[in-house]
Amino acid sequence: MLFMHFPIVALVGKYHDAGIAAPLLELAQMLRDGGREVLFEADTAAYIGVSDYPAASVEEIGRRASLAIVMGGDGTMLGVARQLAPWDVPLIGINRGRLGFITDIPLEDATTAIAGMLAGQYEPETRTLLTSSVIRGDTTMVSALALNDVVLSRAGLGGMLEVTVQVDGLYMSKQRADGLIIATPTGSTAYALSANGPILHPSLRGLVLVPVAPQALSNRPIAIPDDCTIEITLTRSPGGRDESASVHFDMHSWSSLQEGDRIVVRRAEHTIRFLHPAGYSYFSTLRRKLHWNQISGTAID
Amino acid sequence: MLFMHFPIVALVGKYHDAGIAAPLLELAQMLRDGGREVLFEADTAAYIGVSDYPAASVEEIGRRASLAIVMGGDGTMLGVARQLAPWDVPLIGINRGRLGFITDIPLEDATTAIAGMLAGQYEPETRTLLTSSVIRGDTTMVSALALNDVVLSRAGLGGMLEVTVQVDGLYMSKQRADGLIIATPTGSTAYALSANGPILHPSLRGLVLVPVAPQALSNRPIAIPDDCTIEITLTRSPGGRDESASVHFDMHSWSSLQEGDRIVVRRAEHTIRFLHPAGYSYFSTLRRKLHWNQISGTAID
Amino acid sequence: MLFMHFPIVALVGKYHDAGIAAPLLELAQMLRDGGREVLFEADTAAYIGVSDYPAASVEEIGRRASLAIVMGGDGTMLGVARQLAPWDVPLIGINRGRLGFITDIPLEDATTAIAGMLAGQYEPETRTLLTSSVIRGDTTMVSALALNDVVLSRAGLGGMLEVTVQVDGLYMSKQRADGLIIATPTGSTAYALSANGPILHPSLRGLVLVPVAPQALSNRPIAIPDDCTIEITLTRSPGGRDESASVHFDMHSWSSLQEGDRIVVRRAEHTIRFLHPAGYSYFSTLRRKLHWNQISGTAID
Amino acid sequence: MLFMHFPIVALVGKYHDAGIAAPLLELAQMLRDGGREVLFEADTAAYIGVSDYPAASVEEIGRRASLAIVMGGDGTMLGVARQLAPWDVPLIGINRGRLGFITDIPLEDATTAIAGMLAGQYEPETRTLLTSSVIRGDTTMVSALALNDVVLSRAGLGGMLEVTVQVDGLYMSKQRADGLIIATPTGSTAYALSANGPILHPSLRGLVLVPVAPQALSNRPIAIPDDCTIEITLTRSPGGRDESASVHFDMHSWSSLQEGDRIVVRRAEHTIRFLHPAGYSYFSTLRRKLHWNQISGTAID
Repeated sequence: MLFMHFPIVALVGKYHDAGIAAPLLELAQMLRDGGREVLFEADTAAYIGVSDYPAASVEEIGRRASLAIVMGGDGTMLGVARQLAPWDVPLIGINRGRLGFITDIPLEDATTAIAGMLAGQYEPETRTLLTSSVIRGDTTMVSALALNDVVLSRAGLGGMLEVTVQVDGLYMSKQRADGLIIATPTGSTAYALSANGPILHPSLRGLVLVPVAPQALSNRPIAIPDDCTIEITLTRSPGGRDESASVHFDMHSWSSLQEGDRIVVRRAEHTIRFLHPAGYSYFSTLRRKLHWNQISGTAID
Repeated sequence: MLFMHFPIVALVGKYHDAGIAAPLLELAQMLRDGGREVLFEADTAAYIGVSDYPAASVEEIGRRASLAIVMGGDGTMLGVARQLAPWDVPLIGINRGRLGFITDIPLEDATTAIAGMLAGQYEPETRTLLTSSVIRGDTTMVSALALNDVVLSRAGLGGMLEVTVQVDGLYMSKQRADGLIIATPTGSTAYALSANGPILHPSLRGLVLVPVAPQALSNRPIAIPDDCTIEITLTRSPGGRDESASVHFDMHSWSSLQEGDRIVVRRAEHTIRFLHPAGYSYFSTLRRKLHWNQISGTAID
Repeated sequence: MLFMHFPIVALVGKYHDAGIAAPLLELAQMLRDGGREVLFEADTAAYIGVSDYPAASVEEIGRRASLAIVMGGDGTMLGVARQLAPWDVPLIGINRGRLGFITDIPLEDATTAIAGMLAGQYEPETRTLLTSSVIRGDTTMVSALALNDVVLSRAGLGGMLEVTVQVDGLYMSKQRADGLIIATPTGSTAYALSANGPILHPSLRGLVLVPVAPQALSNRPIAIPDDCTIEITLTRSPGGRDESASVHFDMHSWSSLQEGDRIVVRRAEHTIRFLHPAGYSYFSTLRRKLHWNQISGTAID
Repeated sequence: MLFMHFPIVALVGKYHDAGIAAPLLELAQMLRDGGREVLFEADTAAYIGVSDYPAASVEEIGRRASLAIVMGGDGTMLGVARQLAPWDVPLIGINRGRLGFITDIPLEDATTAIAGMLAGQYEPETRTLLTSSVIRGDTTMVSALALNDVVLSRAGLGGMLEVTVQVDGLYMSKQRADGLIIATPTGSTAYALSANGPILHPSLRGLVLVPVAPQALSNRPIAIPDDCTIEITLTRSPGGRDESASVHFDMHSWSSLQEGDRIVVRRAEHTIRFLHPAGYSYFSTLRRKLHWNQISGTAID
């Protein structure tokens, strides 16, 4: 065999989930039997006690692996994808429990599905990543990537946030709300959907700004091109200057926001590539996750 | 036995549903074996060819029956309940398919459930009924009862309706929308819920006005006491004077609305009494129908 | 004059608002000229330096005054009304700025309006008040009244709250959301409206439970009778046991919630009585506050 | 002057609006004084009795004019833009009344604004146009362009529509609803916004599908790339086969839909070019039309 898809495969498991040990090792064996080199992500290897395969740091995986297979839920995948983003390693997600939006292969189908994908029967899908910084005066306080969303959020105490929003340097609006979500298409089915945002198809080149419980009833979600730069200035925070608002990059929080801080969000240079089994349909995932396929509904019939 | 709950029981089946014949006849036998008189609603009797039991018109059922058992879906129950409303006959609903909001006994449990209820183990629930008329000048054009809702709706052609709404003679609002729903608590989980209305608990003494696709974003559902009289005047209809708007009383439509017509809605003098098996909970019905009990949702976890 | 409406009138001003001094003193003079006794709320008296009229504590006002006139915004009125609730003193609200939902007399009309109302030309309106406690084990940690709403809210950090809701001892639902609002009709046009809740007419005997950004898309606002007891148990809090969720009684916050705490909410024994000028209409307030009277909207015409 | 922006300018007025005569003639004079050739759209010319300027059909305008100035509301502009689409004539909108989303120059500023724009101080904006056909078997029943939206809508009588939706040949969903809107960014602030759709920025390369009063609560608006082909099949129509559903291309309706009909929607080959005065901001239009600039809102403060 002169050519082999994905000759070096990294395996990553959900953090501290003992149940992944057996299926991951089985998968590793299958990959090795197929003549592939297998790397275990270091924390995963340590937790489940892998000795037959080399452990590798995320950076090593990024530099060396031609594919990463993630076993866990969407949260695990979010974290791994964000870490591997700089190296453009494609990702496959296997889910042990209820299928997710981005971990769409059930464990029981994993062997068959992976075998087909290794043979080249897969559909790649590119997902946009956000890069975001909090800037105070001339100082960058924190920077991070986000695959789902960047969320500005009030603390539990007291009133609403007040922010001004600029898009590509143009003033868009002043908003008073519990929070403001900037979501990618991937994030549009997460928190943003709970806050009444629309679904964005992953191939739409757009982002969506979704206010959470906005004071003005006409303050509605707005989708903009994903090459825009969004700048949000915290003009008033419920508790005044001290730590009464926070910003979240996916699930990572930074809670030291002060009035006057600016949160700048733009599309990251890197993207995420998910690989799906041949025949994959994003719509099929939506139907399953949102129960569209159920006959039921509200109407009396 | 000196006292018997429900000595005369009427049986009503879903219109033209052959599948109800066997279970209805089995139920009739059980009732007769228990010493009760059984009446079959006349259309049901004719359709399934009942000869061993007397057929009765709705009016006879109303005058004579101490209980009506309805086999079908929520739509069947809506119709029967409305017809029997003047006689205050309590109703039990048995559902052959997916359980409804108001037909909450599955066929497979029917024998056991009914036996218990006939022995007095039931929970009564009162539901409000609306009475509504369309008035043109001094003439009442049509009147009807509704258990779910009275809906004013534009025809498919052209633009929005324009109406003014008065509550107890006080001007409330002018509205432009596709339609306007006045729902009872029972109807709050039907069409009104699709139009973004709230759920009203059946014991709340209220109605809710829900606009459908209103032009003004601040035109929101409003719940009012159920002893109010609501008067809606059709001030502009998309196609002008002729039949471009219609009014619906539950599922019955009247499509000859003209500009200037007034739709008057108030709580009916009669109410509906549903009987549920002991231990019934409205919240349980909500959880089942709205899938609240599912772990799933939108968030990425 | 054998009978006089409101012989003893208390005046209360917005906290630390110097602009109220002149109009309050003018109003006091008018009341005194009319033969009424005037009391100034003690903080108001101290702040604006009143010497010609007696200062009175809230409790004295409660015991002695036959009417309290509040000058300020809705927030000021909320606070005063809650404090005076035990004594059933009726309240009139005068607003110096943009009219509120419950302070509906503009300052420029105050003299005329108040004169008419003192002569008996007013319309009373009763508003429901909530009483709420946080209970940990057998200990009541905090109790408070609320005229608008009781809100359970996550802190800024991390994920959603998870609560179970019981109504009159019956299990209603498990909810995952940013927060949960229990609003009176008065509060239905405040925070609850931003979270997609319905408007409740003040004369509706109901409360509404409104989830904020709920994970389940079918988790919708539900209105229930106002004589129900609602018990919310915090089953999971984003940051674990320590201060990661808070409860708000109107604008007063208590941020020491722990997992397992129960928030019990019921209608208070006392109610609030607002007095409005003759001809008052709640719908008129809605039209003004929600801009229903504007022709504009979304449609292209 | 060797070069002149827009040497041939067409003027179009709102249908049967006598008030436009004077300002249009004044504008025509200004254009002629500036050395430009002026064409009056034929119906406009006939209605206001123009004799000093040549009347031209839409097709002549399309072939000859370098610019069209439209005086009227958004509805007038929608119609003119659609008709002129094949010729790519840029459009300027002057509004005599309340400013629209796409007719954003107030009449009182028109002379100054137009003078600047004729001197080259303008900002062009491209808007997407939809082309749509209804197909029955192999026959195309009707085809039309739409700048706002293509809407499938039930007739006033009876129940919900049932459709299946395919995107680029992939099955997306089966939907039961009052209707389904496919909106461009231009249309996202029209009917779609009333049906809870998001705002799409005009430079977003996307469309949005917005259900109207959908039976399933999780049936949410979804934005997709604008180079997709959407095919909607009417699988069930409330009244059966005959004329119980209609399709609308902007404001033009076709009401002969039958079950099994397919509505195919894609981006048109042509686009619309609007010209705005220098300094134009789409966000400014949003703020004005949606009242974002108002201090007011729902909260009690």
